[in-house]
Amino acid sequence: MAAEEIRKVNSEAYPMKGGDGPYSYTKNSTYQREAMESTKELVTKDIGEKLDIDHLLPSNVFHIVDLGCSVGPNTFSSVENILEAVLLKYQSQGPMNPQIPEFQVFFNDHTPNDFNLLFKSLPPNRQYYAVGVPGSFYGRLFPRASIHLFHSSFALQWLSEVPKEVVEKNSPAWNKGRIHYLSSTDEVVRAYNAQYVADMECFLHARAQELVDGGLMVLIIPGCPHGTSVSDTMAYLTIQLLEACLIDMVTKGVVSEEKLDSFNMPMYIMSPLELEAVVERNGCLIIETLKTLSHVLGSDTVLNAKLFASHGRAGFERLIKQHFGEEILDELFDLYHKKFEEELSIVKPRKASSFLVVLRRKAK
Amino acid sequence: MAAEEIRKVNSEAYPMKGGDGPYSYTKNSTYQREAMESTKELVTKDIGEKLDIDHLLPSNVFHIVDLGCSVGPNTFSSVENILEAVLLKYQSQGPMNPQIPEFQVFFNDHTPNDFNLLFKSLPPNRQYYAVGVPGSFYGRLFPRASIHLFHSSFALQWLSEVPKEVVEKNSPAWNKGRIHYLSSTDEVVRAYNAQYVADMECFLHARAQELVDGGLMVLIIPGCPHGTSVSDTMAYLTIQLLEACLIDMVTKGVVSEEKLDSFNMPMYIMSPLELEAVVERNGCLIIETLKTLSHVLGSDTVLNAKLFASHGRAGFERLIKQHFGEEILDELFDLYHKKFEEELSIVKPRKASSFLVVLRRKAK
Repeated sequence: MAAEEIRKVNSEAYPMKGGDGPYSYTKNSTYQREAMESTKELVTKDIGEKLDIDHLLPSNVFHIVDLGCSVGPNTFSSVENILEAVLLKYQSQGPMNPQIPEFQVFFNDHTPNDFNLLFKSLPPNRQYYAVGVPGSFYGRLFPRASIHLFHSSFALQWLSEVPKEVVEKNSPAWNKGRIHYLSSTDEVVRAYNAQYVADMECFLHARAQELVDGGLMVLIIPGCPHGTSVSDTMAYLTIQLLEACLIDMVTKGVVSEEKLDSFNMPMYIMSPLELEAVVERNGCLIIETLKTLSHVLGSDTVLNAKLFASHGRAGFERLIKQHFGEEILDELFDLYHKKFEEELSIVKPRKASSFLVVLRRKAK
Repeated sequence: MAAEEIRKVNSEAYPMKGGDGPYSYTKNSTYQREAMESTKELVTKDIGEKLDIDHLLPSNVFHIVDLGCSVGPNTFSSVENILEAVLLKYQSQGPMNPQIPEFQVFFNDHTPNDFNLLFKSLPPNRQYYAVGVPGSFYGRLFPRASIHLFHSSFALQWLSEVPKEVVEKNSPAWNKGRIHYLSSTDEVVRAYNAQYVADMECFLHARAQELVDGGLMVLIIPGCPHGTSVSDTMAYLTIQLLEACLIDMVTKGVVSEEKLDSFNMPMYIMSPLELEAVVERNGCLIIETLKTLSHVLGSDTVLNAKLFASHGRAGFERLIKQHFGEEILDELFDLYHKKFEEELSIVKPRKASSFLVVLRRKAK
């Protein structure tokens, strides 16, 4: 029953910064957009090849979901791209094609996400019926076999919660003085990994129940692609610099040591191999495509530093505020900006650090 | 195509007061709840008799919509009652009953409605998948033949907009010095009536497309039931007293005459006969039930005055604020409260003034 599944999930929520102010996610998500745009051709091709529309649509309504949609505008472009690809597939069937379906699009994010802003920003000329779905994607969100295509972009790096052991003082996995498992102890790495595996199992289990047979799942995941070392990824840099800033602020006495010790980022930088292993164990989905995405970064260090610092603020501000309070935000993110400038003036922009996965639901 | 239908609707939005403060709709909607509760038995009976579950559910998901849901808590009770009635119907089929479906509930209201609050207030132990749908119910909101049961309570009295002629100085229907058609000129009454008919035609046309064959529509409408004169309805009193307050404030110089002349309430107090005529013309729906609802009002004048004044404020505040500005709100609604006390000390509480309609979609 739906209710049981819903109750099971005890996920925490760390939505992106709402509103449309200078630090909002709305105005600070161009990096994510570029990654998403770079996949457009590939996704169109995959949908063209893998979507079996004859089997999918007895009801003549096509259900698309964007998981972790935040507040736009990226979610609207993603949905638009997918919708065009599906329409193209229909049109490619020639004059004998089945009736073009109507589209219903479900925008999902955590309950505290700013759905009011999302709804206000919906494209007025959209070709679909829009719907908002509050709740964690680590639990069930939809009825059985009701969704034709899931999309998620830059959302699956968020764990459902920080692994408990890493904030317990008496645990061997206590992550004192750090905010992440990266370059931490083996115990901390294991705790984060276990959380990742548990979360991803919940995610795949829920989606496998919700997808119709043959339904697709298109995921863009900021992670650690094949042939890249974790320390070369943008995600790593983003977190390491935030950690360095917080340590500086402890030294200066602005943040207490205890506050830092009790804070950890609920993020995991997964590799395709790790993902493949969980998909394999789940058993209901087939990986159709798995491809590293290349992001083109300009050579202007100042601009890049500004971009990453502002994107970092849009993504992390609410999480930081919740734990450390509002008063440290400006100082912290000014410092963050400076550290990005220093870092990027020495080291070249990082390698590609996200990948595209397209999964298909096996027949039940 | 969906998009065309969506663009066509140019409805204005006057959502109930959000938040959970002392004047919020959340805390000032007990009158509506009592009306809704009084229909529970009747609705359960209708669903039991009229819902043909064998035909309805090839997909095994039951879609319920609450149109004009506002922010709760009434919408959650309404949905709960309907869900129980549908479950009861399934269980009544005995051991040979088909598989109990999963429920997906769509909460609809205008885009500026406080969906963030609505989502935050969702009952944690709900037995359904919850979804929010922004947009006017005078246009299409859902794909063709996708909804099994529509519900709407205390929402259909709102017109999509004030009829244009009544605010045009050169029109014979200019409604100078009044805020409504009630006890106004024939021209104004005709303009309001034409708007009502046009709106209700759009409403029924959209719902007839969205309902599955045999799907039901349960409407609780504050209006003017059979055998009641409009001037005896609660809706009439509510509007007349508001008009009297605004006229007083013009006399005092707090509100300009021009401001009053350019303001009209987008509300229509329909009768069952008027509704029957539009349903007849639409041709796709059958009226299964039409019943006047009795509200039991206590005899305490002070309490009743407080109840109606606070309910009026929750319902009208945003509309008033938009036109007259925030600064008049407290004075206006204090006066409103006083007028209710005066009125109710002279006249007995009004007669029942809402009715229940259950409609069924004919087979296409």
